[in-house]
Amino acid sequence: MPNYISPLRDINFVLNDFINFEKIYERYPQSKDKMNSEIVDQYLQVAADFCENELYPLNRVGDQQGCKLRNGIVTTPDGFKEAYKKYVELGFPALTGDEAYGGQGFPSLLWIAISEILTSCNWAWGMYPGLSHGAMSTIEHHGTDEQKKNYLPKLISGVWTGTMCLTESHAGSDLGLIRTKALPNNDGSYVISGEKIFISAGEHDLSQNIVHIVLARLPNAPAGTKGISLFIVPKFNIDQDGNILDRNGVVCSALEHKMGIHGNATCALSFDNAKGFLIGPENRGLHCMFTFMNSARIGTAIQGLAASESSYQGALAYAKDRLAMRSLSGPQNPELSADPIIVHPAVRNMLLTQKVFAEGSRALAYYLSVYVDIAKLSNDESEKKIAEDKLALLTPIAKAFMTEMGVESAKNGMQVFGGHGYIAEHGMEQIARDVRISTLYEGTTEIQSIDLLFRKVLGSKGELIKLLIEEIKEETQHIPQHEEIASMYIKLENLVKEWHELTTYIQEELSSNPVEVGTISVDYLYFSSYVIFAYLWLKMAMAAQDKISQESTDEFYPAKIATAEFYFERILPRTLVHAELIKSQTKSLFKLSPHQFKFD
Amino acid sequence: MPNYISPLRDINFVLNDFINFEKIYERYPQSKDKMNSEIVDQYLQVAADFCENELYPLNRVGDQQGCKLRNGIVTTPDGFKEAYKKYVELGFPALTGDEAYGGQGFPSLLWIAISEILTSCNWAWGMYPGLSHGAMSTIEHHGTDEQKKNYLPKLISGVWTGTMCLTESHAGSDLGLIRTKALPNNDGSYVISGEKIFISAGEHDLSQNIVHIVLARLPNAPAGTKGISLFIVPKFNIDQDGNILDRNGVVCSALEHKMGIHGNATCALSFDNAKGFLIGPENRGLHCMFTFMNSARIGTAIQGLAASESSYQGALAYAKDRLAMRSLSGPQNPELSADPIIVHPAVRNMLLTQKVFAEGSRALAYYLSVYVDIAKLSNDESEKKIAEDKLALLTPIAKAFMTEMGVESAKNGMQVFGGHGYIAEHGMEQIARDVRISTLYEGTTEIQSIDLLFRKVLGSKGELIKLLIEEIKEETQHIPQHEEIASMYIKLENLVKEWHELTTYIQEELSSNPVEVGTISVDYLYFSSYVIFAYLWLKMAMAAQDKISQESTDEFYPAKIATAEFYFERILPRTLVHAELIKSQTKSLFKLSPHQFKFD
Repeated sequence: MPNYISPLRDINFVLNDFINFEKIYERYPQSKDKMNSEIVDQYLQVAADFCENELYPLNRVGDQQGCKLRNGIVTTPDGFKEAYKKYVELGFPALTGDEAYGGQGFPSLLWIAISEILTSCNWAWGMYPGLSHGAMSTIEHHGTDEQKKNYLPKLISGVWTGTMCLTESHAGSDLGLIRTKALPNNDGSYVISGEKIFISAGEHDLSQNIVHIVLARLPNAPAGTKGISLFIVPKFNIDQDGNILDRNGVVCSALEHKMGIHGNATCALSFDNAKGFLIGPENRGLHCMFTFMNSARIGTAIQGLAASESSYQGALAYAKDRLAMRSLSGPQNPELSADPIIVHPAVRNMLLTQKVFAEGSRALAYYLSVYVDIAKLSNDESEKKIAEDKLALLTPIAKAFMTEMGVESAKNGMQVFGGHGYIAEHGMEQIARDVRISTLYEGTTEIQSIDLLFRKVLGSKGELIKLLIEEIKEETQHIPQHEEIASMYIKLENLVKEWHELTTYIQEELSSNPVEVGTISVDYLYFSSYVIFAYLWLKMAMAAQDKISQESTDEFYPAKIATAEFYFERILPRTLVHAELIKSQTKSLFKLSPHQFKFD
Repeated sequence: MPNYISPLRDINFVLNDFINFEKIYERYPQSKDKMNSEIVDQYLQVAADFCENELYPLNRVGDQQGCKLRNGIVTTPDGFKEAYKKYVELGFPALTGDEAYGGQGFPSLLWIAISEILTSCNWAWGMYPGLSHGAMSTIEHHGTDEQKKNYLPKLISGVWTGTMCLTESHAGSDLGLIRTKALPNNDGSYVISGEKIFISAGEHDLSQNIVHIVLARLPNAPAGTKGISLFIVPKFNIDQDGNILDRNGVVCSALEHKMGIHGNATCALSFDNAKGFLIGPENRGLHCMFTFMNSARIGTAIQGLAASESSYQGALAYAKDRLAMRSLSGPQNPELSADPIIVHPAVRNMLLTQKVFAEGSRALAYYLSVYVDIAKLSNDESEKKIAEDKLALLTPIAKAFMTEMGVESAKNGMQVFGGHGYIAEHGMEQIARDVRISTLYEGTTEIQSIDLLFRKVLGSKGELIKLLIEEIKEETQHIPQHEEIASMYIKLENLVKEWHELTTYIQEELSSNPVEVGTISVDYLYFSSYVIFAYLWLKMAMAAQDKISQESTDEFYPAKIATAEFYFERILPRTLVHAELIKSQTKSLFKLSPHQFKFD
């Protein structure tokens, strides 16, 4: 099994050289004293030690053992419970929590960095605390003071965990179809009944209580998405001091058999006259849910990054070690029976492709979470609005693209291993199975593309795109004297122009026909993603060149610039297809009648 | 679990309308009386019944149970043994076997069609008889009369099965590194000792004996690929009448834990002073192996086709049934709570992408196997040579592209299912796991691309490409009066021109630098593959239009033309990236030193 090493050098580069985070966070009183290099380094080192030593060794254990359901009780794989106990002792659950309820009040950027390491080491395990974040932030944003007092301290300390209960077997992407019912009691609480599926961390043995956030319908609620409300339903009822009472009417009726993430309990939950509490306004449940959904989407994007990183690390180690055939330019290691396979162009191509997606995804995720923080921390309404707008635009891109590239990276990881990539003990096939969920849950790639193009781009009449294009122009106006960087800049400039033209074309020529917009939305998402990555890679190259100009002799920096070049040379041409598909007609897509659409 | 229906309608179209197989096979005395519609239909129907009713129900059983190794004995999943018994009773193992040894002497085209159905129903099971074909053809081509007499009748009848033992743990793509030894005995036999891995069907309970074809080194053999010989090593020694004697010195020391194809026993085999027999000339083992490898590559290509077909069938059924959201053009089924997801452009796009790869792969595989047959049946040296040349060119393309497209189709299949695609009971994730081996074994995609570009294209100084371009011109010279077909024809014409130009460019500009050729070989393989598929899709559209001109009212034909249009409109633009990557410089690929290539 390949060893995982926390990529602290690159994380450090992204935080300091690329984002220059101290300069940003010192602007806000809530983060000023927290976000300095010393503290951040310390947290990252503690996280790296914990993840590498405690979580990583459990990664394959979790995959092999999976979770077990017996008489309604779910047992997680060996060691999961003990690792969670240590995680709580180290204080990680409280990292970003509200200080009023025992949290440490750190901005999300630090959590994102830690979360990357955690997910790279053990995706399935990482989902247990990950889901708690969703529940916490929903209660923080939409709960009453009493609800906050009742639930937040225990969730923040990690003694309890949380879930999000959205999906029903007939209602996934289309939540308007859900049927779970909520009937009011006389005391202001509700009786919740219905069947939910795909509830990650829905039942397990890590925490004393589980706080479910549940979508359900009130009596006489309007049909569809406008008749859905949000409820808190704890696994165990609690008294007003937060003490655990009797078991509530919610049980795990089944565990799903999945392709991967075996260590996480994906539950079917039966709500049978469970006691629940309305959170947020009646019939505004989906709206409240969006708070959670956006953070869940960034969390899923991180999972894509983690798959790119861990499959890259595995493949790189193997490519340096495995001997097969001679270099096409003649033997590189004549003393060995053959050359290590990293000498072969196709292998290098796969490794560098993984590298640009791992490091590029890191840049995007961290950069995005700075906007998450600014939107929360800033008191300047205009700055806040810009951050929210950019987040709105970039979230579906990060979610869809980083997970799709995670899938591609994991495939490359197996491919570098040849036949050994298919064998469980090498760990590469587990990454490929685990990552496969990420383009499906929290809104498929196709759903993200509709969100991006219909809601964000056309919905803002192109304003969000313009906002980002302005940023790109501003951030790249001081291009250093450097041949390769100058050449990348010209490519980016042309590409941004093309992006703007394509967007205008869609607005002017296609937007009256939603089917045509839908037809090209996935290609538009990919095109936009490659533009964003080009921007980030150019900025990273510039940051690296800055260091070189300051006489740094660290080999990391020229390697970073060369990696950026690879992105521009070998990856960016992919935009050609997407541009062509956006511009060209698609008469054939709807030609076949359902009747003709058959195979027998 | 989605139901599989043998796609006999499309198979029939490819055999009759596209290939016009009767006209081809009536030219050869050995096939004249065998290959007529009546006989072929009958065989296909028997195969379809057997595969759908016996093999398909065992597909998930095999995945769940896997094979078990206890005390050197491998047990296959429940039902596998009984299904194999029926398969033998039905006479399928003998289908293409030499009539002199009890075979039925059918050309490979019929076997390819049956093999598609078989693999679609149960990939893992299909590998047991599949591997026997490799052993049989090796003995047929290279065995002595005595070896043929000793082994062929039992292999052909299916009472025994066979394997191919190539890989060792340190030697996969680079077989020159193998270490298994063969020491001569006084009686003309050899003592074989060594460790082989990844031996599919290496040990199991389906057959009375297993005939291993083993690569090993003779004493003082030259190093590398020129010092490898081929041996027959039976699991049980046999007497001169083919009766089973004592156990030979070969045991299964371990079963691999794999991502998929769990029902097939992937064995580590220990050869410990096993008795073996040289087959073919000394030190010419790899050369003899190529006979098998080419047929194995086509067999693997078929597996890619099977994954495209079965994932397409599953996704199509689900897309017609699953309700979510309304069509972007307004409700299509107002009586239902939502529209079936087949109305959504992204879903249609995925389904049609699967369809063009499933049906296009079928066309390529069947077309290719006609050349396999002509190369074998023809007495006309020129016709034979042309068939062999085209086979040489098209085999790496079919192997690599059809398996990669199988992987893509399986991914689409899961994606259409949304979160349900990740759940085992729906069957889609099994297809994705099973198919993943196909771009790895029998030479990775990257190895195929090197074979294609170095050996076949540059090795023939471009002659093989010219040969195929001539065929394309000849076969598409009578384009019917049909707007869409005419438009496809123009696109193909331009594309073929570009293919020729790119090939010339590589020959003239790059061939002096093998590293540069290696850098673009995968892109060249993809570009070539999309050209071949464009050719086949145009030919299929022409064949369909032919039927329409003959007053056929079968809706199958206009659907076929519309599917071809989809290929030209939505798939063919992918060539833009590959052409660009072939033409553009890649200064960045080797910029990073191994030392800079790190993550910590």
